[in-house]
Amino acid sequence: MRTFKILEIKESVFDDNNRQANILRDELKKEKTFLLNLMSSPGSGKTTTLVKTIKALKDEMRIGVMEADIDSDVDAFTISETGAKVIQLHTGGMCHLDSDMTKQGLEGLGTDDIDLAILENVGNLVCPAEFDTGASKSAMILSIPEGDDKPLKYPLMFSIVDVVLINKIDVLEHFDFNLEACKERIFKLNPNVKIITISSRTGEGIDEWADWIRNAVKEWNQ
Amino acid sequence: MRTFKILEIKESVFDDNNRQANILRDELKKEKTFLLNLMSSPGSGKTTTLVKTIKALKDEMRIGVMEADIDSDVDAFTISETGAKVIQLHTGGMCHLDSDMTKQGLEGLGTDDIDLAILENVGNLVCPAEFDTGASKSAMILSIPEGDDKPLKYPLMFSIVDVVLINKIDVLEHFDFNLEACKERIFKLNPNVKIITISSRTGEGIDEWADWIRNAVKEWNQ
Repeated sequence: MRTFKILEIKESVFDDNNRQANILRDELKKEKTFLLNLMSSPGSGKTTTLVKTIKALKDEMRIGVMEADIDSDVDAFTISETGAKVIQLHTGGMCHLDSDMTKQGLEGLGTDDIDLAILENVGNLVCPAEFDTGASKSAMILSIPEGDDKPLKYPLMFSIVDVVLINKIDVLEHFDFNLEACKERIFKLNPNVKIITISSRTGEGIDEWADWIRNAVKEWNQ
Repeated sequence: MRTFKILEIKESVFDDNNRQANILRDELKKEKTFLLNLMSSPGSGKTTTLVKTIKALKDEMRIGVMEADIDSDVDAFTISETGAKVIQLHTGGMCHLDSDMTKQGLEGLGTDDIDLAILENVGNLVCPAEFDTGASKSAMILSIPEGDDKPLKYPLMFSIVDVVLINKIDVLEHFDFNLEACKERIFKLNPNVKIITISSRTGEGIDEWADWIRNAVKEWNQ
């Protein structure tokens, strides 16, 4: 049984996304809702990571999740099983969300009772990097099977995030992935970024990631 | 030492991409150049698959590769080591190639001495699916670590290709991936698609994939 809404997102009418994003960020700050924008390639483990993240934090804060996809509602189903509030956003073919589309999602979700809102953006390393969603902080997941050269090929995404989660660390031995070289490439693009290696399957690193969120939410509400 | 060109692709001036794509396809047909458009998520193994494909076919046909990326030239370097003709295309942040951008690439590559031209499109399951590049045939790679639910979430991409290569089959046992369920989802979207399971690392399935290309090139030149 589906316990969540599906919202068809409309194309934005605003020309100046950066301005709208700042307005949205101010509104969220006032109402003490922290918005995390989570981005990655398709299949890097955003949803599985979110399930583990929600389990780690749900007794301390009220969490709401927006699942953005071109189509389907499989991710919203998965998240709804954690007990977190969730809405599925359908982007109608659009490859990213801007701040107005994010705002539509937040209104659909309802944030009065939410301390931590998470946007699981469309799986795409290119377009979402170009649009400020109005989020308090942005994070991305790079998974081991994708390869250690991804920072070279998608530099903008690695440059604009506050955290990079390197996921699927449990299968590192089965892939040709140079973890140190990858970290160096990321720091070269973004010297102040936080990098956390995790396994959304085994739970490795989730404590450190949950701590990072705790601190970020605390700072946001000061 | 770099033995290939890097071409900065310009934004297209044409409104009607489908018309331009058909014109390009006709031109390629006349000059007996087969153009394959290869798409996938970032990190699914396009370049490694191409290296194996070139090795399988280079004694039978003259191969040229266009490596499209936002930035970097790591893939063109890898391909150039096979001895195949290669050009690196920089899309300047653009998330896909349309037929005019593909034509710029083909002109940069030079196709007079090429039987099989391969476009390695930008790593992205969303935007490239929406633009006909003028290719003779289109293929995509889905890799096992990405998950068996991808056809549900990126249906357009799976609908428009002639072949789906399911790559990294050598690590199947380390991931929760239901191969039969995945194939069913793909066939539901695209009943006539060819699905080939491969490992670009071990070479499994590359013979079947090379055979598919051989036949497609033969048909193209009839």
